[in-house]
Amino acid sequence: MLVVRTIADLREALRPARREEASIGFVPTMGALHHGHEALMERARTECDVVVLSIFVNPTQFNDPTDLERYPRTEEADVAIAEKNGVDFVFMPSAEEMYRPGSTIEVRLDGPLVDSLEGAHRGSDHFHGVTTVVTKLFNIVQPEVAYFGQKDAQQALVIRALVRELDMPVRIDVVQTVREDDGLAMSSRNIHVKGRDRERALGLKAALDEAQSAYDGGERDAAALTERAVAAMKPFEVVPEYLAIVDRVTLQPVETVEPGALVVIAAPVGPVRLIDNTVIKDTAQLTRSA
Amino acid sequence: MLVVRTIADLREALRPARREEASIGFVPTMGALHHGHEALMERARTECDVVVLSIFVNPTQFNDPTDLERYPRTEEADVAIAEKNGVDFVFMPSAEEMYRPGSTIEVRLDGPLVDSLEGAHRGSDHFHGVTTVVTKLFNIVQPEVAYFGQKDAQQALVIRALVRELDMPVRIDVVQTVREDDGLAMSSRNIHVKGRDRERALGLKAALDEAQSAYDGGERDAAALTERAVAAMKPFEVVPEYLAIVDRVTLQPVETVEPGALVVIAAPVGPVRLIDNTVIKDTAQLTRSA
Repeated sequence: MLVVRTIADLREALRPARREEASIGFVPTMGALHHGHEALMERARTECDVVVLSIFVNPTQFNDPTDLERYPRTEEADVAIAEKNGVDFVFMPSAEEMYRPGSTIEVRLDGPLVDSLEGAHRGSDHFHGVTTVVTKLFNIVQPEVAYFGQKDAQQALVIRALVRELDMPVRIDVVQTVREDDGLAMSSRNIHVKGRDRERALGLKAALDEAQSAYDGGERDAAALTERAVAAMKPFEVVPEYLAIVDRVTLQPVETVEPGALVVIAAPVGPVRLIDNTVIKDTAQLTRSA
Repeated sequence: MLVVRTIADLREALRPARREEASIGFVPTMGALHHGHEALMERARTECDVVVLSIFVNPTQFNDPTDLERYPRTEEADVAIAEKNGVDFVFMPSAEEMYRPGSTIEVRLDGPLVDSLEGAHRGSDHFHGVTTVVTKLFNIVQPEVAYFGQKDAQQALVIRALVRELDMPVRIDVVQTVREDDGLAMSSRNIHVKGRDRERALGLKAALDEAQSAYDGGERDAAALTERAVAAMKPFEVVPEYLAIVDRVTLQPVETVEPGALVVIAAPVGPVRLIDNTVIKDTAQLTRSA
Protein backbone atom coordinates (compact mmCIF):
# COMPACT_ATOMS: atom_id res chain seq x y z
CA MET A 1 0.00 0.00 0.00
CA LEU A 2 1.28 3.42 -0.94
CA VAL A 3 0.50 6.64 0.93
CA VAL A 4 0.74 9.73 -1.27
CA ARG A 5 0.25 13.36 -0.34
CA THR A 6 0.32 15.25 -3.61
CA ILE A 7 -1.93 15.24 -6.65
CA ALA A 8 1.06 14.74 -8.95
CA ASP A 9 2.26 11.73 -6.97
CA LEU A 10 -1.16 10.10 -7.01
CA ARG A 11 -1.52 10.62 -10.77
CA GLU A 12 1.91 9.10 -11.24
CA ALA A 13 1.10 6.16 -8.96
CA LEU A 14 -2.14 5.44 -10.82
CA ARG A 15 -0.59 5.64 -14.28
CA PRO A 16 0.20 1.92 -14.63
CA ALA A 17 -3.30 0.95 -13.48
CA ARG A 18 -4.84 3.27 -16.02
CA ARG A 19 -2.58 1.96 -18.75
CA GLU A 20 -3.69 -1.59 -17.98
CA GLU A 21 -7.32 -0.47 -18.00
CA ALA A 22 -7.68 -1.63 -14.41
CA SER A 23 -10.97 -0.59 -12.83
CA ILE A 24 -10.35 1.96 -10.10
CA GLY A 25 -12.62 2.02 -7.06
CA PHE A 26 -12.56 5.16 -4.93
CA VAL A 27 -13.55 5.69 -1.30
CA PRO A 28 -13.45 9.39 -0.40
CA THR A 29 -13.37 9.97 3.37
CA MET A 30 -12.53 12.58 5.98
CA GLY A 31 -10.56 9.96 7.93
CA ALA A 32 -11.21 8.77 11.50
CA LEU A 33 -12.05 5.54 9.79
CA HIS A 34 -14.59 3.17 11.32
CA HIS A 35 -16.50 0.03 10.33
CA GLY A 36 -18.75 2.10 8.07
CA HIS A 37 -15.74 3.13 6.01
CA GLU A 38 -14.49 -0.45 6.11
CA ALA A 39 -17.71 -1.59 4.47
CA LEU A 40 -17.00 0.85 1.64
CA MET A 41 -13.42 -0.42 1.27
CA GLU A 42 -14.59 -4.04 1.30
CA ARG A 43 -17.12 -3.32 -1.42
CA ALA A 44 -14.50 -1.54 -3.51
CA ARG A 45 -11.99 -4.36 -2.95
CA THR A 46 -14.55 -6.90 -4.18
CA GLU A 47 -15.64 -4.95 -7.23
CA CYS A 48 -12.48 -3.21 -8.49
CA ASP A 49 -8.91 -3.98 -9.49
CA VAL A 50 -7.42 -1.00 -7.70
CA VAL A 51 -8.73 0.70 -4.56
CA VAL A 52 -7.95 4.33 -3.74
CA LEU A 53 -8.92 5.80 -0.38
CA SER A 54 -8.69 9.53 0.22
CA ILE A 55 -8.47 11.14 3.64
CA PHE A 56 -9.13 14.84 3.52
CA VAL A 57 -10.95 16.90 6.12
CA ASN A 58 -12.35 19.38 3.63
CA PRO A 59 -12.53 22.80 5.31
CA THR A 60 -14.98 24.23 2.75
CA GLN A 61 -17.82 21.93 3.80
CA PHE A 62 -17.74 22.87 7.48
CA ASN A 63 -20.15 25.59 8.47
CA ASP A 64 -19.03 25.41 12.09
CA PRO A 65 -15.34 26.22 12.74
CA THR A 66 -15.46 24.39 16.08
CA ASP A 67 -16.75 21.28 14.32
CA LEU A 68 -13.86 21.51 11.85
CA GLU A 69 -11.30 22.02 14.60
CA ARG A 70 -12.71 19.20 16.68
CA TYR A 71 -13.13 16.78 13.77
CA PRO A 72 -11.07 13.72 14.73
CA ARG A 73 -7.72 13.18 12.98
CA THR A 74 -6.33 9.68 13.46
CA GLU A 75 -3.85 9.40 10.63
CA GLU A 76 -1.75 6.44 11.80
CA ALA A 77 -4.74 4.32 12.77
CA ASP A 78 -6.42 5.21 9.46
CA VAL A 79 -3.44 4.03 7.44
CA ALA A 80 -3.44 0.74 9.35
CA ILE A 81 -7.18 0.24 8.73
CA ALA A 82 -6.75 1.02 5.04
CA GLU A 83 -3.91 -1.50 4.76
CA LYS A 84 -5.93 -4.17 6.57
CA ASN A 85 -8.78 -3.67 4.10
CA GLY A 86 -6.66 -4.11 1.00
CA VAL A 87 -6.51 -0.48 -0.08
CA ASP A 88 -3.81 0.09 -2.73
CA PHE A 89 -3.36 3.85 -2.49
CA VAL A 90 -4.12 6.25 0.35
CA PHE A 91 -4.33 9.88 -0.80
CA MET A 92 -3.80 12.32 2.08
CA PRO A 93 -3.39 15.82 0.68
CA SER A 94 -2.95 18.96 2.76
CA ALA A 95 -5.52 21.77 2.50
CA GLU A 96 -2.91 23.79 0.55
CA GLU A 97 -2.45 20.95 -1.93
CA MET A 98 -6.20 20.83 -2.59
CA TYR A 99 -6.89 24.57 -2.59
CA ARG A 100 -4.14 26.76 -3.97
CA PRO A 101 -3.97 30.35 -2.70
CA GLY A 102 -6.51 32.48 -4.50
CA SER A 103 -8.60 29.50 -5.55
CA THR A 104 -12.19 30.57 -6.21
CA ILE A 105 -13.66 27.48 -7.86
CA GLU A 106 -17.12 26.38 -6.79
CA VAL A 107 -19.17 23.53 -8.16
CA ARG A 108 -22.72 23.95 -6.96
CA LEU A 109 -26.14 22.49 -7.27
CA ASP A 110 -29.09 24.57 -6.19
CA GLY A 111 -32.65 23.76 -5.23
CA PRO A 112 -34.31 21.54 -2.62
CA LEU A 113 -31.73 18.75 -2.80
CA VAL A 114 -29.06 21.01 -1.31
CA ASP A 115 -31.29 23.54 0.49
CA SER A 116 -33.38 21.16 2.56
CA LEU A 117 -32.55 19.17 5.71
CA GLU A 118 -28.76 19.31 6.18
CA GLY A 119 -28.62 22.23 3.74
CA ALA A 120 -31.24 24.13 5.72
CA HIS A 121 -29.52 23.48 9.03
CA ARG A 122 -25.84 23.65 8.10
CA GLY A 123 -26.36 26.16 5.26
CA SER A 124 -26.32 25.20 1.58
CA ASP A 125 -22.63 26.15 1.44
CA HIS A 126 -22.07 22.82 3.15
CA PHE A 127 -23.09 20.91 0.04
CA HIS A 128 -21.35 23.39 -2.26
CA GLY A 129 -18.18 22.50 -0.35
CA VAL A 130 -18.95 18.80 -0.79
CA THR A 131 -19.69 18.98 -4.51
CA THR A 132 -16.60 21.09 -5.16
CA VAL A 133 -14.18 18.80 -3.35
CA VAL A 134 -15.76 15.64 -4.76
CA THR A 135 -15.46 17.00 -8.30
CA LYS A 136 -11.79 17.73 -7.68
CA LEU A 137 -11.17 14.32 -6.14
CA PHE A 138 -12.95 12.56 -9.01
CA ASN A 139 -10.80 14.47 -11.51
CA ILE A 140 -7.66 13.51 -9.62
CA VAL A 141 -8.49 9.83 -9.10
CA GLN A 142 -10.65 9.28 -12.22
CA PRO A 143 -12.36 6.27 -10.68
CA GLU A 144 -14.81 3.96 -12.40
CA VAL A 145 -16.85 3.63 -9.20
CA ALA A 146 -16.97 5.78 -6.06
CA TYR A 147 -18.42 4.54 -2.78
CA PHE A 148 -20.49 6.54 -0.32
CA GLY A 149 -22.37 5.58 2.84
CA GLN A 150 -26.14 5.58 3.17
CA LYS A 151 -25.69 7.15 6.63
CA ASP A 152 -25.19 10.44 4.76
CA ALA A 153 -28.27 9.83 2.63
CA GLN A 154 -28.66 13.40 1.45
CA GLN A 155 -24.98 13.64 0.55
CA ALA A 156 -25.28 10.48 -1.54
CA LEU A 157 -28.25 11.99 -3.43
CA VAL A 158 -26.38 15.24 -3.97
CA ILE A 159 -23.37 13.35 -5.33
CA ARG A 160 -25.58 11.33 -7.66
CA ALA A 161 -27.11 14.56 -8.97
CA LEU A 162 -23.66 16.11 -9.34
CA VAL A 163 -22.38 13.20 -11.41
CA ARG A 164 -25.52 13.18 -13.55
CA GLU A 165 -25.62 16.93 -14.15
CA LEU A 166 -21.90 17.27 -14.86
CA ASP A 167 -21.88 14.11 -17.01
CA MET A 168 -19.03 12.64 -14.99
CA PRO A 169 -17.90 9.20 -16.12
CA VAL A 170 -18.20 7.75 -12.60
CA ARG A 171 -20.66 5.27 -11.12
CA ILE A 172 -21.86 6.03 -7.59
CA ASP A 173 -22.40 3.10 -5.26
CA VAL A 174 -24.16 3.73 -1.95
CA VAL A 175 -23.41 1.22 0.82
CA GLN A 176 -25.72 0.44 3.73
CA THR A 177 -25.17 2.09 7.11
CA VAL A 178 -23.07 0.08 9.54
CA ARG A 179 -24.17 0.20 13.19
CA GLU A 180 -22.73 -0.57 16.59
CA ASP A 181 -24.26 -3.61 18.31
CA ASP A 182 -26.71 -1.36 20.13
CA GLY A 183 -27.82 0.32 16.90
CA LEU A 184 -25.85 3.56 16.93
CA ALA A 185 -24.88 4.45 13.37
CA MET A 186 -21.11 4.48 12.90
CA SER A 187 -19.74 8.00 12.59
CA SER A 188 -16.35 9.61 12.99
CA ARG A 189 -17.98 12.09 15.34
CA ASN A 190 -19.01 9.29 17.75
CA ILE A 191 -15.52 9.49 19.24
CA HIS A 192 -16.70 12.64 21.03
CA VAL A 193 -19.85 10.97 22.40
CA LYS A 194 -19.00 9.71 25.86
CA GLY A 195 -20.59 8.49 29.09
CA ARG A 196 -24.23 9.48 29.48
CA ASP A 197 -24.18 11.04 25.99
CA ARG A 198 -23.35 7.63 24.52
CA GLU A 199 -26.69 6.33 25.90
CA ARG A 200 -28.51 9.45 24.75
CA ALA A 201 -27.15 8.92 21.23
CA LEU A 202 -29.36 5.83 20.96
CA GLY A 203 -32.31 8.21 20.80
CA LEU A 204 -31.80 8.64 17.06
CA LYS A 205 -32.07 4.92 16.31
CA ALA A 206 -35.01 4.65 18.73
CA ALA A 207 -36.85 7.30 16.74
CA LEU A 208 -36.18 5.50 13.44
CA ASP A 209 -37.32 2.19 14.94
CA GLU A 210 -40.46 3.82 16.28
CA ALA A 211 -41.23 5.24 12.81
CA GLN A 212 -41.01 1.75 11.31
CA SER A 213 -43.08 0.14 14.05
CA ALA A 214 -45.73 2.86 13.83
CA TYR A 215 -45.86 2.13 10.10
CA ASP A 216 -46.06 -1.60 10.85
CA GLY A 217 -48.94 -0.83 13.16
CA GLY A 218 -50.84 0.80 10.32
CA GLU A 219 -49.95 4.47 10.73
CA ARG A 220 -49.68 6.12 7.30
CA ASP A 221 -49.96 9.78 8.21
CA ALA A 222 -46.51 11.40 8.04
CA ALA A 223 -47.29 14.02 10.66
CA ALA A 224 -48.56 11.45 13.16
CA LEU A 225 -45.67 9.15 12.44
CA THR A 226 -43.19 11.97 12.91
CA GLU A 227 -44.79 12.86 16.21
CA ARG A 228 -44.43 9.31 17.47
CA ALA A 229 -40.80 9.16 16.36
CA VAL A 230 -40.01 12.42 18.13
CA ALA A 231 -41.75 11.15 21.25
CA ALA A 232 -39.57 8.05 21.19
CA MET A 233 -36.49 10.24 21.62
CA LYS A 234 -37.78 11.84 24.79
CA PRO A 235 -36.63 9.13 27.21
CA PHE A 236 -33.13 9.66 25.77
CA GLU A 237 -33.36 13.38 26.46
CA VAL A 238 -32.68 14.11 22.83
CA VAL A 239 -34.51 16.77 20.85
CA PRO A 240 -34.10 16.54 17.10
CA GLU A 241 -32.85 19.47 15.07
CA TYR A 242 -35.09 18.00 12.41
CA LEU A 243 -36.96 14.74 11.96
CA ALA A 244 -38.68 14.40 8.62
CA ILE A 245 -40.28 11.82 6.38
CA VAL A 246 -39.34 12.55 2.80
CA ASP A 247 -39.27 11.12 -0.68
CA ARG A 248 -36.06 9.12 -0.92
CA VAL A 249 -35.12 10.64 -4.28
CA THR A 250 -36.34 14.25 -4.16
CA LEU A 251 -36.12 14.73 -0.36
CA GLN A 252 -39.47 16.51 -0.49
CA PRO A 253 -41.71 15.90 2.55
CA VAL A 254 -44.41 13.29 2.05
CA GLU A 255 -47.88 13.46 3.58
CA THR A 256 -48.69 9.78 3.33
CA VAL A 257 -46.02 7.28 4.22
CA GLU A 258 -45.35 4.50 1.74
CA PRO A 259 -42.64 1.86 1.65
CA GLY A 260 -39.43 3.46 0.43
CA ALA A 261 -40.05 6.73 2.25
CA LEU A 262 -36.92 8.06 3.93
CA VAL A 263 -36.97 8.99 7.61
CA VAL A 264 -34.15 11.43 8.30
CA ILE A 265 -33.01 12.83 11.58
CA ALA A 266 -30.38 15.18 12.97
CA ALA A 267 -29.89 15.86 16.65
CA PRO A 268 -27.33 17.42 18.95
CA VAL A 269 -25.94 14.94 21.44
CA GLY A 270 -23.44 16.36 23.91
CA PRO A 271 -20.69 18.19 22.04
CA VAL A 272 -21.63 16.96 18.56
CA ARG A 273 -24.45 16.80 16.10
CA LEU A 274 -25.42 13.33 14.86
CA ILE A 275 -27.47 12.30 11.86
CA ASP A 276 -29.14 9.02 10.91
CA ASN A 277 -31.84 7.73 8.57
CA THR A 278 -33.81 4.70 7.57
CA VAL A 279 -35.97 3.65 4.66
CA ILE A 280 -39.50 2.53 5.60
CA LYS A 281 -39.94 -1.14 4.75
CA ASP A 282 -43.13 -2.83 3.61
CA THR A 283 -44.35 -4.77 6.63
CA ALA A 284 -46.55 -7.12 4.64
CA GLN A 285 -43.65 -8.11 2.43
CA LEU A 286 -41.41 -8.60 5.43
CA THR A 287 -44.01 -10.90 6.94
CA ARG A 288 -44.54 -12.78 3.71
CA SER A 289 -40.85 -13.34 3.19
CA ALA A 290 -40.34 -14.39 6.82
CA MET B 1 -16.51 11.08 -39.91
CA LEU B 2 -19.37 10.41 -37.55
CA VAL B 3 -21.95 12.98 -36.45
CA VAL B 4 -23.51 12.15 -33.06
CA ARG B 5 -26.19 14.00 -31.17
CA THR B 6 -26.37 12.30 -27.79
CA ILE B 7 -23.93 11.96 -24.92
CA ALA B 8 -24.44 8.19 -24.84
CA ASP B 9 -23.69 7.85 -28.55
CA LEU B 10 -20.52 9.90 -28.30
CA ARG B 11 -19.29 7.85 -25.32
CA GLU B 12 -20.00 4.69 -27.27
CA ALA B 13 -18.25 6.02 -30.37
CA LEU B 14 -15.15 6.98 -28.39
CA ARG B 15 -14.90 3.68 -26.53
CA PRO B 16 -12.55 1.97 -29.02
CA ALA B 17 -10.25 5.00 -29.10
CA ARG B 18 -10.07 5.05 -25.33
CA ARG B 19 -9.43 1.31 -25.19
CA GLU B 20 -6.49 1.73 -27.57
CA GLU B 21 -5.18 4.62 -25.48
CA ALA B 22 -5.48 6.90 -28.49
CA SER B 23 -4.91 10.56 -27.64
CA ILE B 24 -8.14 12.50 -28.04
CA GLY B 25 -8.00 16.14 -29.17
CA PHE B 26 -11.09 18.24 -28.59
CA VAL B 27 -12.25 21.43 -30.30
CA PRO B 28 -15.31 22.85 -28.55
CA THR B 29 -17.17 25.38 -30.71
CA MET B 30 -20.51 27.10 -31.10
CA GLY B 31 -20.50 26.30 -34.83
CA ALA B 32 -20.59 28.78 -37.71
CA LEU B 33 -17.11 27.47 -38.35
CA HIS B 34 -14.49 29.71 -39.95
CA HIS B 35 -10.73 29.66 -40.61
CA GLY B 36 -10.09 30.36 -36.93
CA HIS B 37 -11.82 27.09 -36.01
CA GLU B 38 -10.00 25.36 -38.85
CA ALA B 39 -6.68 26.36 -37.28
CA LEU B 40 -7.83 24.60 -34.09
CA MET B 41 -8.86 21.47 -36.00
CA GLU B 42 -5.57 21.43 -37.90
CA ARG B 43 -3.62 21.68 -34.69
CA ALA B 44 -5.65 18.89 -33.12
CA ARG B 45 -5.27 16.74 -36.24
CA THR B 46 -1.48 17.17 -36.11
CA GLU B 47 -1.14 16.45 -32.41
CA CYS B 48 -3.77 13.80 -31.62
CA ASP B 49 -4.91 10.38 -32.80
CA VAL B 50 -8.59 11.21 -32.63
CA VAL B 51 -10.23 14.61 -33.15
CA VAL B 52 -13.61 15.48 -31.65
CA LEU B 53 -15.36 18.72 -32.57
CA SER B 54 -18.41 19.87 -30.65
CA ILE B 55 -20.98 22.30 -31.98
CA PHE B 56 -23.24 23.62 -29.28
CA VAL B 57 -24.63 27.12 -29.00
CA ASN B 58 -24.69 27.16 -25.23
CA PRO B 59 -27.67 29.21 -24.05
CA THR B 60 -26.32 29.70 -20.51
CA GLN B 61 -23.40 31.84 -21.64
CA PHE B 62 -25.48 34.41 -23.53
CA ASN B 63 -26.39 37.48 -21.53
CA ASP B 64 -28.27 38.98 -24.47
CA PRO B 65 -31.25 36.92 -25.78
CA THR B 66 -31.07 38.74 -29.15
CA ASP B 67 -27.42 37.75 -29.50
CA LEU B 68 -28.36 34.12 -28.77
CA GLU B 69 -31.24 34.17 -31.23
CA ARG B 70 -29.15 35.82 -33.92
CA TYR B 71 -26.08 33.65 -33.36
CA PRO B 72 -25.42 32.02 -36.76
CA ARG B 73 -26.33 28.33 -37.18
CA THR B 74 -24.80 26.77 -40.28
CA GLU B 75 -24.99 23.08 -39.51
CA GLU B 76 -24.51 21.59 -42.99
CA ALA B 77 -21.60 23.83 -43.86
CA ASP B 78 -20.03 23.13 -40.46
CA VAL B 79 -20.17 19.38 -40.98
CA ALA B 80 -18.49 19.79 -44.39
CA ILE B 81 -15.74 21.96 -42.88
CA ALA B 82 -15.17 19.46 -40.08
CA GLU B 83 -14.89 16.61 -42.57
CA LYS B 84 -12.46 18.57 -44.74
CA ASN B 85 -10.25 19.16 -41.71
CA GLY B 86 -10.02 15.53 -40.72
CA VAL B 87 -12.34 15.61 -37.71
CA ASP B 88 -13.34 12.10 -36.60
CA PHE B 89 -16.42 12.86 -34.50
CA VAL B 90 -18.77 15.84 -34.56
CA PHE B 91 -20.84 16.14 -31.40
CA MET B 92 -23.98 18.23 -31.93
CA PRO B 93 -26.25 17.90 -28.89
CA SER B 94 -29.53 19.71 -28.41
CA ALA B 95 -29.95 22.08 -25.46
CA GLU B 96 -32.22 19.45 -23.85
CA GLU B 97 -29.52 16.81 -24.19
CA MET B 98 -27.01 19.04 -22.43
CA TYR B 99 -29.31 20.48 -19.76
CA ARG B 100 -31.97 18.16 -18.45
CA PRO B 101 -35.14 19.73 -17.05
CA GLY B 102 -34.53 20.95 -13.52
CA SER B 103 -30.77 21.02 -13.97
CA THR B 104 -29.20 23.45 -11.48
CA ILE B 105 -25.52 22.69 -11.81
CA GLU B 106 -23.12 25.58 -11.95
CA VAL B 107 -19.34 25.48 -12.12
CA ARG B 108 -18.01 28.91 -11.31
CA LEU B 109 -14.85 30.82 -10.78
CA ASP B 110 -15.03 34.16 -9.06
CA GLY B 111 -12.72 37.16 -8.89
CA PRO B 112 -11.12 39.48 -11.44
CA LEU B 113 -10.54 36.81 -14.07
CA VAL B 114 -14.29 36.42 -14.62
CA ASP B 115 -15.48 39.80 -13.34
CA SER B 116 -13.30 42.07 -15.46
CA LEU B 117 -13.53 43.03 -19.16
CA GLU B 118 -16.00 40.61 -20.80
CA GLY B 119 -17.30 39.68 -17.35
CA ALA B 120 -17.88 43.32 -16.46
CA HIS B 121 -19.63 44.07 -19.74
CA ARG B 122 -21.54 40.85 -20.38
CA GLY B 123 -22.00 40.02 -16.69
CA SER B 124 -19.98 37.36 -14.88
CA ASP B 125 -22.77 34.85 -15.55
CA HIS B 126 -21.32 34.72 -19.05
CA PHE B 127 -18.20 32.97 -17.80
CA HIS B 128 -20.16 30.83 -15.34
CA GLY B 129 -22.06 29.56 -18.36
CA VAL B 130 -18.79 28.92 -20.18
CA THR B 131 -17.10 27.07 -17.29
CA THR B 132 -20.18 24.96 -16.66
CA VAL B 133 -20.60 23.81 -20.25
CA VAL B 134 -16.88 23.25 -20.76
CA THR B 135 -16.73 21.09 -17.63
CA LYS B 136 -19.62 19.02 -18.94
CA LEU B 137 -18.08 18.72 -22.41
CA PHE B 138 -14.70 17.72 -20.95
CA ASN B 139 -16.40 15.03 -18.86
CA ILE B 140 -18.23 13.74 -21.91
CA VAL B 141 -15.29 13.77 -24.33
CA GLN B 142 -12.47 13.18 -21.78
CA PRO B 143 -9.87 14.65 -24.12
CA GLU B 144 -6.14 14.72 -23.55
CA VAL B 145 -5.91 18.19 -25.13
CA ALA B 146 -8.56 20.85 -25.79
CA TYR B 147 -8.04 23.69 -28.24
CA PHE B 148 -9.18 27.28 -27.81
CA GLY B 149 -8.55 30.43 -29.83
CA GLN B 150 -6.47 33.37 -28.61
CA LYS B 151 -9.15 35.67 -30.08
CA ASP B 152 -11.14 34.91 -26.92
CA ALA B 153 -8.12 35.62 -24.73
CA GLN B 154 -10.05 36.01 -21.50
CA GLN B 155 -12.03 32.84 -22.13
CA ALA B 156 -8.78 30.93 -22.66
CA LEU B 157 -7.45 32.22 -19.31
CA VAL B 158 -10.69 31.33 -17.57
CA ILE B 159 -10.57 27.80 -18.99
CA ARG B 160 -6.95 27.39 -17.92
CA ALA B 161 -7.93 28.47 -14.40
CA LEU B 162 -10.91 26.11 -14.45
CA VAL B 163 -8.78 23.13 -15.42
CA ARG B 164 -6.13 24.02 -12.84
CA GLU B 165 -8.59 24.63 -9.98
CA LEU B 166 -10.73 21.57 -10.68
CA ASP B 167 -7.65 19.38 -11.30
CA MET B 168 -9.00 18.27 -14.65
CA PRO B 169 -6.72 15.87 -16.53
CA VAL B 170 -6.83 17.98 -19.70
CA ARG B 171 -4.15 20.11 -21.36
CA ILE B 172 -5.33 23.44 -22.79
CA ASP B 173 -3.75 24.61 -26.01
CA VAL B 174 -4.40 28.18 -27.15
CA VAL B 175 -4.05 28.79 -30.89
CA GLN B 176 -3.18 32.14 -32.45
CA THR B 177 -5.96 34.34 -33.85
CA VAL B 178 -6.63 33.90 -37.56
CA ARG B 179 -7.40 37.09 -39.50
CA GLU B 180 -8.93 38.06 -42.81
CA ASP B 181 -6.45 39.52 -45.32
CA ASP B 182 -7.33 43.03 -44.16
CA GLY B 183 -6.72 42.15 -40.51
CA LEU B 184 -10.24 41.56 -39.20
CA ALA B 185 -10.14 38.77 -36.61
CA MET B 186 -12.18 35.75 -37.71
CA SER B 187 -15.42 35.43 -35.75
CA SER B 188 -18.71 33.67 -36.25
CA ARG B 189 -20.42 37.00 -35.62
CA ASN B 190 -18.67 38.59 -38.65
CA ILE B 191 -21.40 37.10 -40.82
CA HIS B 192 -23.66 39.89 -39.56
CA VAL B 193 -21.12 42.63 -40.35
CA LYS B 194 -21.94 43.95 -43.79
CA GLY B 195 -21.31 46.89 -46.14
CA ARG B 196 -20.06 50.01 -44.38
CA ASP B 197 -19.93 48.09 -41.06
CA ARG B 198 -17.41 45.71 -42.59
CA GLU B 199 -15.05 48.66 -43.08
CA ARG B 200 -15.81 50.02 -39.63
CA ALA B 201 -14.93 46.62 -38.13
CA LEU B 202 -11.30 47.25 -39.09
CA GLY B 203 -11.25 49.89 -36.37
CA LEU B 204 -10.48 47.19 -33.78
CA LYS B 205 -7.36 45.98 -35.57
CA ALA B 206 -6.35 49.59 -36.23
CA ALA B 207 -6.46 50.28 -32.51
CA LEU B 208 -4.34 47.22 -31.72
CA ASP B 209 -1.82 48.19 -34.41
CA GLU B 210 -1.67 51.73 -33.08
CA ALA B 211 -0.98 50.39 -29.56
CA GLN B 212 1.99 48.41 -30.88
CA SER B 213 3.36 51.27 -32.97
CA ALA B 214 3.00 53.70 -30.06
CA TYR B 215 4.96 51.20 -28.00
CA ASP B 216 7.51 50.90 -30.81
CA GLY B 217 7.81 54.68 -30.75
CA GLY B 218 8.77 54.58 -27.09
CA GLU B 219 5.43 55.16 -25.36
CA ARG B 220 5.35 53.15 -22.12
CA ASP B 221 2.50 54.83 -20.27
CA ALA B 222 -0.60 52.65 -20.42
CA ALA B 223 -3.03 55.57 -20.19
CA ALA B 224 -1.35 57.47 -23.02
CA LEU B 225 -1.08 54.33 -25.13
CA THR B 226 -4.76 53.54 -24.56
CA GLU B 227 -5.70 57.07 -25.59
CA ARG B 228 -3.78 56.74 -28.85
CA ALA B 229 -5.37 53.36 -29.59
CA VAL B 230 -8.86 54.76 -28.97
CA ALA B 231 -8.08 57.72 -31.21
CA ALA B 232 -7.06 55.32 -33.99
CA MET B 233 -10.62 53.95 -34.04
CA LYS B 234 -12.16 57.33 -34.62
CA PRO B 235 -11.78 57.39 -38.42
CA PHE B 236 -13.66 54.07 -38.44
CA GLU B 237 -16.49 55.59 -36.41
CA VAL B 238 -16.07 52.92 -33.78
CA VAL B 239 -16.21 53.64 -30.06
CA PRO B 240 -14.90 50.85 -27.85
CA GLU B 241 -17.00 49.36 -25.11
CA TYR B 242 -13.66 48.90 -23.41
CA LEU B 243 -10.04 49.15 -24.50
CA ALA B 244 -7.55 48.12 -21.84
CA ILE B 245 -3.93 47.20 -21.42
CA VAL B 246 -3.69 44.38 -18.91
CA ASP B 247 -1.40 41.72 -17.55
CA ARG B 248 -1.73 38.76 -19.89
CA VAL B 249 -2.15 36.28 -17.02
CA THR B 250 -4.09 38.14 -14.31
CA LEU B 251 -5.98 40.55 -16.62
CA GLN B 252 -5.26 43.32 -14.13
CA PRO B 253 -4.64 46.75 -15.71
CA VAL B 254 -0.99 47.71 -16.01
CA GLU B 255 0.36 51.25 -15.61
CA THR B 256 3.58 50.77 -17.50
CA VAL B 257 3.51 48.79 -20.72
CA GLU B 258 6.05 46.02 -21.12
CA PRO B 259 6.42 43.36 -23.77
CA GLY B 260 3.83 40.65 -23.15
CA ALA B 261 1.14 43.09 -22.02
CA LEU B 262 -2.25 42.27 -23.48
CA VAL B 263 -4.27 44.90 -25.30
CA VAL B 264 -7.93 43.92 -25.26
CA ILE B 265 -10.81 45.57 -26.97
CA ALA B 266 -14.56 45.16 -27.39
CA ALA B 267 -16.70 47.36 -29.59
CA PRO B 268 -20.17 47.40 -31.10
CA VAL B 269 -20.09 47.38 -34.89
CA GLY B 270 -23.47 47.53 -36.56
CA PRO B 271 -25.72 44.81 -35.17
CA VAL B 272 -23.01 42.92 -33.28
CA ARG B 273 -20.32 43.33 -30.67
CA LEU B 274 -16.81 42.35 -31.70
CA ILE B 275 -13.74 41.62 -29.59
CA ASP B 276 -10.05 41.41 -30.43
CA ASN B 277 -6.70 41.51 -28.69
CA THR B 278 -2.96 41.53 -29.21
CA VAL B 279 0.13 40.94 -27.14
CA ILE B 280 2.65 43.80 -27.16
CA LYS B 281 5.89 42.66 -28.77
CA ASP B 282 9.38 43.81 -27.89
CA THR B 283 10.40 46.17 -30.68
CA ALA B 284 14.13 45.85 -30.02
CA GLN B 285 13.94 42.08 -30.26
CA LEU B 286 11.88 42.27 -33.42
CA THR B 287 14.55 44.52 -34.94
CA ARG B 288 17.41 42.33 -33.79
CA SER B 289 15.83 39.16 -35.18
CA ALA B 290 15.05 40.88 -38.51
